[in-house]
Amino acid sequence: MQKRYLFTPGPTPVPPEVLAATAEPIVHHRGLDFREIYERSLARLGEVYCTSSPVLLFSASGTGAMDSAVTNLTAAGDRVAVVVAGAFGERWTKICAAYGLDVQRIDYAWGEVPDPVEIGSAVAESGVDLVFCTQSETSTGVVADVQAIKAAVGEATLVVDAVSSLGAVPLETDAWEIDVAVSGSQKALMCPPGLAMASVADHLWERLPSSRSFYFDWRATRKAQEAFDSAFTPAVSLIRGLDVALGMLLDAGLEAAFERHVRLGRATRAGVKAMGLELFSPDDDSSAVVTAIRTPEGIESPALLRHLRERHGVTLAPGQGALKPNVFRIGHIGWFDIFDIAAALAALELALTELGADIERGAAVGRAFEAYEQHVTA
Amino acid sequence: MQKRYLFTPGPTPVPPEVLAATAEPIVHHRGLDFREIYERSLARLGEVYCTSSPVLLFSASGTGAMDSAVTNLTAAGDRVAVVVAGAFGERWTKICAAYGLDVQRIDYAWGEVPDPVEIGSAVAESGVDLVFCTQSETSTGVVADVQAIKAAVGEATLVVDAVSSLGAVPLETDAWEIDVAVSGSQKALMCPPGLAMASVADHLWERLPSSRSFYFDWRATRKAQEAFDSAFTPAVSLIRGLDVALGMLLDAGLEAAFERHVRLGRATRAGVKAMGLELFSPDDDSSAVVTAIRTPEGIESPALLRHLRERHGVTLAPGQGALKPNVFRIGHIGWFDIFDIAAALAALELALTELGADIERGAAVGRAFEAYEQHVTA
Repeated sequence: MQKRYLFTPGPTPVPPEVLAATAEPIVHHRGLDFREIYERSLARLGEVYCTSSPVLLFSASGTGAMDSAVTNLTAAGDRVAVVVAGAFGERWTKICAAYGLDVQRIDYAWGEVPDPVEIGSAVAESGVDLVFCTQSETSTGVVADVQAIKAAVGEATLVVDAVSSLGAVPLETDAWEIDVAVSGSQKALMCPPGLAMASVADHLWERLPSSRSFYFDWRATRKAQEAFDSAFTPAVSLIRGLDVALGMLLDAGLEAAFERHVRLGRATRAGVKAMGLELFSPDDDSSAVVTAIRTPEGIESPALLRHLRERHGVTLAPGQGALKPNVFRIGHIGWFDIFDIAAALAALELALTELGADIERGAAVGRAFEAYEQHVTA
Repeated sequence: MQKRYLFTPGPTPVPPEVLAATAEPIVHHRGLDFREIYERSLARLGEVYCTSSPVLLFSASGTGAMDSAVTNLTAAGDRVAVVVAGAFGERWTKICAAYGLDVQRIDYAWGEVPDPVEIGSAVAESGVDLVFCTQSETSTGVVADVQAIKAAVGEATLVVDAVSSLGAVPLETDAWEIDVAVSGSQKALMCPPGLAMASVADHLWERLPSSRSFYFDWRATRKAQEAFDSAFTPAVSLIRGLDVALGMLLDAGLEAAFERHVRLGRATRAGVKAMGLELFSPDDDSSAVVTAIRTPEGIESPALLRHLRERHGVTLAPGQGALKPNVFRIGHIGWFDIFDIAAALAALELALTELGADIERGAAVGRAFEAYEQHVTA
C-alpha cells in the first residue's frame, strides 16, 4: 500500500496517457495501423529535434544510439576527441576504446562546465575531425553549451549525447549545425526506456564509412524508415507510447517545456539551499535537467536513499562513480511539475531529520515555490 | 469501431495481464522494486530455456541477440557454416557477412526440412567449428530438429535462432547441449517486441574472444546480470511484462504449451485443407509454430491480406522473399487458442469467397475442431 514516488533522472515518470498507449493491443509492424503511428512518431521526433534530416529510431537503450554513432562514423584506429566531464563522457571513451579508436580526452573535473573555447583549441591543435560530447551530463547536473562547442570545433563533426537533454533544454539541431545527436525515450521524452534515436545531418551521408554494426546500421535503418518500415521488428508498443508523449510535448510547446525545466531547476536549488545543503551541480539556470546535491556532514548518500526508499517510498538517484558516497540527485526531466519538487523536498527534509542531520526545517518548500514563480526572461 | 484480429507470427497477440503489467508506473532500474522483477524474470527465462547457464537479456529486437552471437563468438575472417532454408537463415548469412566472416552456406529450398545428417557431413568436411541454424523458420513454417543437428555437428559450436520457437516447441538447451540459443519477447513468450535474449553455455565463456559490439557485449551483460544489475538502462516496462508472461507460461507448464502448439498447427492445416487450399509448410506435427499456405489460383497474397485487413480487420502475415505473391501465413505462436484459429479460418474462407476464389465453404472450422480434439501422444 505504500505509494511510490520516482524523482530520478531516468527512467523518469511516464504520464498515464502514455502508459495506457503502450498497453494497447499489439499491432503488426508492417500493417497500416502501425504505419500511421510510426510515420507520425518519426515526424514528431524531427520536430522535437528541430531538424529536417532523418532521425533514426532504434529498439535499444540510449547507449545503443551512442554505440551507433561510433560504429557508423569511425574505422578502427581513427583519432577522435571526447569531452569528459562526468560518467556519460566516460561512457563515450569506453565505447570509442571498445571499437579501437585513438581517443584524445578533453578532461574536466566532474561538475565543471566544459569550455567551448578550450575545446575548440584542443581540437584544432590535435587536428581530429570527430568530437564526442555530452549536452546534459546527468551524473553532475551540468548542461554544456553545445551550440558554442559546435561553433568552436568548426569543420569537425560533432556528436552530441542528448539523452537526458532532448526536450528538456534547447537543442536546435539544424540551426546549430549539430552533426549527430543521440537520445533515448526514458528522459524528457516521457516514455519508458527501450527506444533510442540518432539524428544524422544530411551532409554526413555521402561520406559515411560502412557500418561496423549490423543491428545499428544507419544506412539500413534510414532506408527502411524512408519506406515507413523498420529493418527489424521494432518495439511497437513503446513507439505507440512515444507517439502520444511527443504529441503531448509538442502540443504544449517546446518553449514551454524548456521554461518549465529552468524553473523546476531553480525551485529545486532554492529548496535544498534553504535546508542548508550544498549544491554539487552549478547554481544557475543552465542546470535545468537534474540537481546534484552534497549530503550533509555525517550522512552518506546510500543510507539516505535507502531510508527514503524504505521508509517513505521515495526514489532519488545516487551519485555516480567517485560521487557515490556524498552526492545524490533529484531529477526534474520530463513529466515533472512543481508539486513533484515540493514532494521531493519535503521527503528529503523529513528523511535527513530522521537520520539526525543538522538542517534547516520548514523553509524548503516555500522557497522552492518562490523561485518557481519567477518567469524566465529570455 | 472495427474489431482487430492479429493472427501473425510476431509480433503476436499479448495477454491483457501482460499489457497491463507493461503499463504499470515506471520503476528505477537500480531500485529494489525492479530488482525483484528482474531477478524473477531471469530465473524464469532459465526455466523456459531449460538451462542452468546464464540467459543474457538485451533491450533490442530479436535480431539484436542474433547480432550478439556473431559479434561475441567470431573475429573477422573466421570460417563459419550457416544452414539456410528461409528468410531467417538468410538473416544469419547477412549478419555474418556484415562482420566479415567467411560463410559456408548449407542450403535448402525454402520449405524444405534441413537434414541433420547432411549438415553433420558438410560441417565435418569443411572443418568449421561454428554453425548457425534456425529452429523455427518463420518464413516457411518448418521446424528443424536442432537436437539432431547438434548431435550431428559434434564438437562444433551450434548457435540456434529460437526467436519464434522458444516456448512453442521443445528446446532443451542443456540436455541437448545447445551452445547458444537466441530468442525474442514477441513470439511464444507473449510479450511486446523489444527484448532479446541469448543463452550461452558455460563451457563457451573461457574461450570467448573480445566482443566486437559494445552494446551487445556478453561479458559485460553477464557481469551486470550476476549482480541483478544491467549494463545500461533496460526496458523496465517490457521486463515487467516478460515477468508476468513467463509466469503464465510456466504456471500452465511448458509441456501444455508445446501440446497446444501442436494441436493448433493440426487444426490450422485441417481447416485450410478442408477449403481445398494447398499447404506450403510441412503437413505434419513438426510444423507447430506458423502455417504457410499457398493462395488459390488467381488470387495474389497481397490482395488477399489487404482485403482481410480492410474489410474484416483481420491481419495475417505475407509470404517473405520470393514467396510474397503466392504464400501467406497464419501464426499460432504464444497466446493463441482454438477459437483464434476458428476466427482466422472463418475470415479466410469469407475473404477468399468475396474475392471469387473457388474454395470449399462451410467445412474448415468443423475440421479444425476435429483435428484439435485429438490429444498428442508422446
